[in-house]
Amino acid sequence: MIKKKINIAVIGLGQIGNYLLNELNTKKNDIELKTGKKIQIVAISAKNKNKKRKFKINKKIFYKEPLNIFKKKKIDILFEAIGQSDGISKQLVEIALKNKIHVITPNKALISKHGDYLSNLAEKNKVNLEFEASVAGGIPILRTIKEGLATNKLTKVYGILNGTCNYILSEMEKTKKSFPEVLKKAQSLGYAEPGNPKLDLNGYDAFAKIRILSSLAFNKKISKKNCIMEGIENIEYKDIEITSQLNFRIKLLGITEIIGGKLFERVHPALVKKDTYIGNVNGVMNAVIVEGQPVGESVLQGEGAGPGATSSALMSDLLSILRGNIKYPFGLPDFKRLNPLCYNEKKSSNSLYIRLEVIDKPGVLSQITKLLANNKISIERVLQTPDHKKKSASIVIITHKAFEYRSLNLINSLKKNKNVIKKPVLIRLF
Amino acid sequence: MIKKKINIAVIGLGQIGNYLLNELNTKKNDIELKTGKKIQIVAISAKNKNKKRKFKINKKIFYKEPLNIFKKKKIDILFEAIGQSDGISKQLVEIALKNKIHVITPNKALISKHGDYLSNLAEKNKVNLEFEASVAGGIPILRTIKEGLATNKLTKVYGILNGTCNYILSEMEKTKKSFPEVLKKAQSLGYAEPGNPKLDLNGYDAFAKIRILSSLAFNKKISKKNCIMEGIENIEYKDIEITSQLNFRIKLLGITEIIGGKLFERVHPALVKKDTYIGNVNGVMNAVIVEGQPVGESVLQGEGAGPGATSSALMSDLLSILRGNIKYPFGLPDFKRLNPLCYNEKKSSNSLYIRLEVIDKPGVLSQITKLLANNKISIERVLQTPDHKKKSASIVIITHKAFEYRSLNLINSLKKNKNVIKKPVLIRLF
Repeated sequence: MIKKKINIAVIGLGQIGNYLLNELNTKKNDIELKTGKKIQIVAISAKNKNKKRKFKINKKIFYKEPLNIFKKKKIDILFEAIGQSDGISKQLVEIALKNKIHVITPNKALISKHGDYLSNLAEKNKVNLEFEASVAGGIPILRTIKEGLATNKLTKVYGILNGTCNYILSEMEKTKKSFPEVLKKAQSLGYAEPGNPKLDLNGYDAFAKIRILSSLAFNKKISKKNCIMEGIENIEYKDIEITSQLNFRIKLLGITEIIGGKLFERVHPALVKKDTYIGNVNGVMNAVIVEGQPVGESVLQGEGAGPGATSSALMSDLLSILRGNIKYPFGLPDFKRLNPLCYNEKKSSNSLYIRLEVIDKPGVLSQITKLLANNKISIERVLQTPDHKKKSASIVIITHKAFEYRSLNLINSLKKNKNVIKKPVLIRLF
Repeated sequence: MIKKKINIAVIGLGQIGNYLLNELNTKKNDIELKTGKKIQIVAISAKNKNKKRKFKINKKIFYKEPLNIFKKKKIDILFEAIGQSDGISKQLVEIALKNKIHVITPNKALISKHGDYLSNLAEKNKVNLEFEASVAGGIPILRTIKEGLATNKLTKVYGILNGTCNYILSEMEKTKKSFPEVLKKAQSLGYAEPGNPKLDLNGYDAFAKIRILSSLAFNKKISKKNCIMEGIENIEYKDIEITSQLNFRIKLLGITEIIGGKLFERVHPALVKKDTYIGNVNGVMNAVIVEGQPVGESVLQGEGAGPGATSSALMSDLLSILRGNIKYPFGLPDFKRLNPLCYNEKKSSNSLYIRLEVIDKPGVLSQITKLLANNKISIERVLQTPDHKKKSASIVIITHKAFEYRSLNLINSLKKNKNVIKKPVLIRLF
């Protein structure tokens, strides 16, 4: 990119796009100082021109139909901030790359689904496709893996990758309130989607991030397999209370690692010791831990969500492009990135926390423990507490390490048992 | 850098240079994959050709006299791993840059002293001067500030920047051993220089790193002023024991921030609460915390020393150059970097921990407390414990916030007081 004036388009003017626009406008001088390039915003687009926004938009450059931008303006760099995994988001990015326009996006749904195809397209057209903001908000984790730790042999990346879930779990512990109450508060604060927070809560969002992290850390194509993806929807305050007494906190973890040459990706709630580092990352904070040789263990922590943190990452991508930096979206040429071999998650093993609500009558605990024995899962401790009003009881079991396939069998048998009156809660120990 | 074969020289084959050499040799394919460049090591140099080293060296490319390399070989990239602040280190880097050779170095003494001059030289000659390894070992903190957080307005950077000191303080707490005993152990493990560990222990090393961080974070020239630079040499096990009872840990902190447009850099031991993040970074780990807008607070933690972590950073610099990335060593053109205005550190204020060894006789405590009152320093708590054998007593005082100039006056008066029989220990609360 030799020319000095750079034309920029921003598509999608929700919280993130709108904040970004303000950053672009207020930091023009700083950008010119650091890169020698003058940026100018030549086109913006969103569903609603007249929506009330935090920062005013220049309506003279507003386009109702985003695809018209390409016909009317010469664009050098396009920000895609709509956020769909397909549809108009994909279409926009495709057209841009094919027209040799650099693309910057915080869209993890798009990248985790179509990242291989789009990065190939970017390479072919010799432009950048940058997506630092798609994982862990303001933490420059992708750049750290691609550049800062470039020649390390990484073996494991894990952490807290969904600020919404982490906020809800922290807040439940702090306020002793129920999941639905805290979710409502998270929505009112803008941490969780007001309409449909499902993709945050069911682990999908964190899994998309884990897929992007895996492909960067291990130099592979993006995996299509869902090894283990569980969210926090079933967790009740009761679980937080009981595990707290055992000196644990519940965290939604994303974990990816290479075991015997095979990729093992998973997202699930996990019990972590209160006195560990990860056990003390609370609220909307994200944290990522990278293990590799020769660097050892690296930890990065920062705000994982919100327009400020996301804009910080989007702007870092912009500067990278303006400086003419790094071209391969995934750090190495697309044709060198092989499909990962996937680890059979059923062979993995974990200690388990299991909570069951059962009918309070003689013989039930004996039935339950027999099911565990049948599945060769041995018990470390059991707590049974009655609820006399409901004539039910809670049984909490902590097991020794058990193979995943046995845990699954056990949970299936427990679900079928007519004395178990609610869906069993299973949380793995980390 | 358009050509495909890249000639590399490594000068200095101590622990770091030797480890780096092995990394370069074993990761040639990975480097070619990620950058498209073939590297070849064409020259190495060190004081002693035949010293026993962990990884064998190729004696055919060994030069006794490092400067001869420039005459005999065409070099593209030079690693300087000797580590002097001046002398041959500076000479080598100067000649290399003038000959349009990219330079990579972990040498914080050199960069913190001559970084402005050398970066200007690099810019003039359109080559890179990279020094990621000079600060916080394997943590890619410089790249994070220059690139990952590029357009944020940073206001404060602080952390644990000297692994040796952090190891000694952690180990004293753990083993209840004295400073000299633990220092000996640190030396035997290779964490502290066997001959002269002074530059680690007196805060000089951490201060050099703070200077580099300041200039990157705040886009200024490197400061020449020593605001506050104190080391850990005076800390005894007794201090660790007493502060531990008060729920504190002692950490050597490096802190740089902008206060009212002025730069305030300091390195000193500090009392940090045991339940804080920074209070739990132990052993040889380093941690850096960056505060800025809009990103909020970012934390980076990793191994701060040792040849593995350092080589990881050196290799990241190499890949950056091979990919043709970022040219300004300090992130923006040299002529745009102004000299910092320096904050008057005497105006800063801190609560203080003061430990005095005094003659155990009536009236001493009264004298001491009067000195504090004279200096308008108010006391939060006092602990006096006698040592009957020595006929002395320890007085520990925790003060409320006091201005630095008053603290200095107080310490001077205390030193002069004939009842105070050892140099007073002063540690600031963080």
